[in-house]
Amino acid sequence: MINITHKSSTLRKAIAQATVRVSSQATIDAVVNKQVAKGDVFEMAKTAGLFAAKRTADMIPDCHPLPIEFTAVRFEIQGLEIHIQVEVHTIYKTGVEVEAMHAASVVALTAYDMLKPIDKGIEIHQIKLLQKSGGKSDFRETFD
Amino acid sequence: MINITHKSSTLRKAIAQATVRVSSQATIDAVVNKQVAKGDVFEMAKTAGLFAAKRTADMIPDCHPLPIEFTAVRFEIQGLEIHIQVEVHTIYKTGVEVEAMHAASVVALTAYDMLKPIDKGIEIHQIKLLQKSGGKSDFRETFD
Amino acid sequence: MINITHKSSTLRKAIAQATVRVSSQATIDAVVNKQVAKGDVFEMAKTAGLFAAKRTADMIPDCHPLPIEFTAVRFEIQGLEIHIQVEVHTIYKTGVEVEAMHAASVVALTAYDMLKPIDKGIEIHQIKLLQKSGGKSDFRETFD
Amino acid sequence: MINITHKSSTLRKAIAQATVRVSSQATIDAVVNKQVAKGDVFEMAKTAGLFAAKRTADMIPDCHPLPIEFTAVRFEIQGLEIHIQVEVHTIYKTGVEVEAMHAASVVALTAYDMLKPIDKGIEIHQIKLLQKSGGKSDFRETFD
Amino acid sequence: MINITHKSSTLRKAIAQATVRVSSQATIDAVVNKQVAKGDVFEMAKTAGLFAAKRTADMIPDCHPLPIEFTAVRFEIQGLEIHIQVEVHTIYKTGVEVEAMHAASVVALTAYDMLKPIDKGIEIHQIKLLQKSGGKSDFRETFD
Amino acid sequence: MINITHKSSTLRKAIAQATVRVSSQATIDAVVNKQVAKGDVFEMAKTAGLFAAKRTADMIPDCHPLPIEFTAVRFEIQGLEIHIQVEVHTIYKTGVEVEAMHAASVVALTAYDMLKPIDKGIEIHQIKLLQKSGGKSDFRETFD
Repeated sequence: MINITHKSSTLRKAIAQATVRVSSQATIDAVVNKQVAKGDVFEMAKTAGLFAAKRTADMIPDCHPLPIEFTAVRFEIQGLEIHIQVEVHTIYKTGVEVEAMHAASVVALTAYDMLKPIDKGIEIHQIKLLQKSGGKSDFRETFD
Repeated sequence: MINITHKSSTLRKAIAQATVRVSSQATIDAVVNKQVAKGDVFEMAKTAGLFAAKRTADMIPDCHPLPIEFTAVRFEIQGLEIHIQVEVHTIYKTGVEVEAMHAASVVALTAYDMLKPIDKGIEIHQIKLLQKSGGKSDFRETFD
Repeated sequence: MINITHKSSTLRKAIAQATVRVSSQATIDAVVNKQVAKGDVFEMAKTAGLFAAKRTADMIPDCHPLPIEFTAVRFEIQGLEIHIQVEVHTIYKTGVEVEAMHAASVVALTAYDMLKPIDKGIEIHQIKLLQKSGGKSDFRETFD
Repeated sequence: MINITHKSSTLRKAIAQATVRVSSQATIDAVVNKQVAKGDVFEMAKTAGLFAAKRTADMIPDCHPLPIEFTAVRFEIQGLEIHIQVEVHTIYKTGVEVEAMHAASVVALTAYDMLKPIDKGIEIHQIKLLQKSGGKSDFRETFD
Repeated sequence: MINITHKSSTLRKAIAQATVRVSSQATIDAVVNKQVAKGDVFEMAKTAGLFAAKRTADMIPDCHPLPIEFTAVRFEIQGLEIHIQVEVHTIYKTGVEVEAMHAASVVALTAYDMLKPIDKGIEIHQIKLLQKSGGKSDFRETFD
Repeated sequence: MINITHKSSTLRKAIAQATVRVSSQATIDAVVNKQVAKGDVFEMAKTAGLFAAKRTADMIPDCHPLPIEFTAVRFEIQGLEIHIQVEVHTIYKTGVEVEAMHAASVVALTAYDMLKPIDKGIEIHQIKLLQKSGGKSDFRETFD
C-alpha cells in the first residue's frame, strides 16, 4: 500500500460506468415496470452499490480506507443496454476511481443476479472510468 | 431472496471470466517479470479473489450464503489482454455462478488498481460466465 | 457459544416484526409515493434487511453462522405506523429468530435514517418475535 | 447518499436508548449476579455494541463512514426493564445518531439472545434517540 | 483454496493456545479484580474471540467458510502469564485448527490492547495448536 | 472505547513483528522457491496482512477506526525462522501499534495455514511491537 502520509487532502471525484446487456426487450420492460420477481432492480442494485463503494478497501488490497462523502448511482437504458454510472466524491489524499469502479461492478452483478432467471443471455460489458478530477491528472473520456 | 429450503444439495461448479486489457507490452512484461511496484499482480489479485468468492453473499443482496468448497484463479495472457478465470465449486442447493463472476470482477479490479500507475489505458472488458454445471441447466459457452 | 454439534438439522422458520411510527400522514404519503429524497424507502430498507439477516452472526456474539435459505421483508402501513415483518428460514440445528429480529431492526433503522430528514418525530417501537417453528417449542403470538 | 463534501467538521454527539423488558425478577438477578450461562450479559453486549457502532455504515445504506472517536455503553435497571444507553462522539461533517441507535439495537439484541433461554417473555421496546448535539439542530428528549 | 468437495463431514475439534505475558502482579490483579479502565478483560476478549472464530475465512485466504458449531474461550493465570485457550468444533469436511488459532490471537490482541495503558511490558508469546481431532491425523501436544 | 475527540492528529508509525518457526530447511526452501501448493506464501500472506491492518477496528473492540495511510509487510528468513515485520502509518489521534500487531498475526497465521500441510512442526512465536513513534512516548526495542 503506497504511502500517502505526505499528500494533502483535496476534493476528488470519479465517475465509473458498467454496462449490462440483456437479450430481449421483455427484460428491459420487466425492469422498467418493476415486474422482476426478486424486486425492484434499480433500487436494490443501487443499494448494493452504496454499500460496495464504502467497502472497497475491504475488497481491494492496496486501496486506502477513505471517507466517502457522496455516492450516486444512475441508470440509463439504451436499447438492450443498461448503463450504470456510479459517482463518488471524497476529500482525501487519494482518488476514488477504484471505489467508483468497484461499486459499478457490484451494481452490475446485482442486476445480473436478479435478471438471469428471466434472461439467460444477460452479460456484463466493460467496467470503465468515465471521469476523475482532483488528483495529479484530471481525466475525461468522451461519452460514447 | 428465493426460498431454497426444498431443494437438494448437489455438486455445482461455475467458471467465470473477466478480461483486463492493457495498452502496451511493457505492462504485460512488468506483470510477468514481477516488476510492478505494488507487488506480484497475479498473486495479490488471486488472493483478493479468494476472499471475494467467499464474501459474495455479503455484497449481492439475493445471494445465499453457501459453503465454497473450492476456488481456483487462473491467468492467461493473450496479446495485451489478461484473461482471468475463476472456478468455484460447492455442494449446495444453489449454484455458484455469481460467486465466480464476483470473484473474477474483484481479481480484475485488483489488477487494474495495481497497474493503473504504470498504464493509463488499462480497461476491464466483460465479466462473463463461461461454464456452469450441477443445476437445472448446464451451460457451456464456446471459448472465444 | 453453545454446542450444537449433537443436534439435528430441521426446517426452522421465524417471523419478527419491528414498528416504525412517524408523526404525520405526509411522511406516509412520501414513502408510498416514492418521493423521499434518499430513494425508495421500502426497496432500500428491504435490501439492507436481506444483508442484515445474512450477517447476524457477525454482529451477535453467540449466534452460530447458518445457511439462510429464505428471507422475505414485508411492509404494512397502519395509520402512522409502518409494520416491518421479516421472515427467515433455514434447515439447520438452531433457529433463526435472532436473525429475523436483527434484520427487522436494520430495516427499521434504514427507514428511520431515510425519513428523519423529513420527519423529526419518527420513532422505532418494539422489535419482537411473532412466530417461530421447527425447534423444541413452536411459538405464535396473536397478531395485535 | 447525500453529499457532505461542503460541510465542515464539528464535534457531534448522540445518545440513543434501547429498552429490554424481561418477564421476571429472576432474570434481572441472573444478569446482575453474572449467572447467565452464555456469559456476562452486560460485558458481552457492550462489546457487541462497540463493534456495532463502528460498523453502522456497513449496515445502513446511506450512512457515511466516519471516525467514531468515543463510544460508551451504559446499562440501568428499572424494575423489569434494562435501559441501554449508547453514547457516540465524532468530529466530522455529519451526526452519529444512527450510529448510536444501531449500536443500542445490537446491544439489546445481544441481551435478548443471551437471555431468551431463561426468559421466554423477554421483549425489546423502543429504540430511540435521547440527545444529539453538534449539528444544525440540537435535540434533547426529557428522560422518561 | 484446496478442493474439499469429495471429503466427508465428520466432527472436528481443535484447541489452540495464546499466551500473554504481563510485567507485574499489579496487572494480573487489575484483570482479576475487574479494575481495568477499558472494561472486563476476560469477558471483552472472549467476546472478540467468539466473533474472530466465526470470521476466520474472512481473514485467511485459503480457509473454507464452515459452520462453527461450538466455541469456548478459557483463561488461566500462571504467575505473570495469561494462558488463553480457544476450543472450536465443527461437523464439516475440514478442520478448525486455524479458526482456533485465529480466535486465540484476537483474544490475546484484545487483552494486549486493553492492558497496554497500564503495563508497558506486556507481550504476546506463542500462538499454538494444543489438540485437534477428527481429521486424518489426531494431534495432542503434552500440555507444558 | 476511550474518548479521543480532544486529541490532535499527528503522524504515527508502528512496526510489529511476528515470528513463524518451521521445523526443516525443506520448508524454507519451498517458500523461497515458490513451490508451496497453496501458492506464493510471501505474496499471499502479505495481501492478507494488508487487509488485516485495515480491518483491525472490526476485530478488536476498543480500537478506533482510523485512516491507514501506509502499510508495508516484510519477510526475513533467519535459519528456520521467518520474521514478519509489518509497518503501519497514520496521521490521526491515536497510534497504530495494535493495527501493526494484528496485521502481523494474520500474516503469520496465513503462512501457518499454507505451510502446515508440508510441515507439521510449524509454530508461531511472539507477536511483538518493535517500534512506535508519534504518540506520547516513542518506543524502540533493540532488534534481536
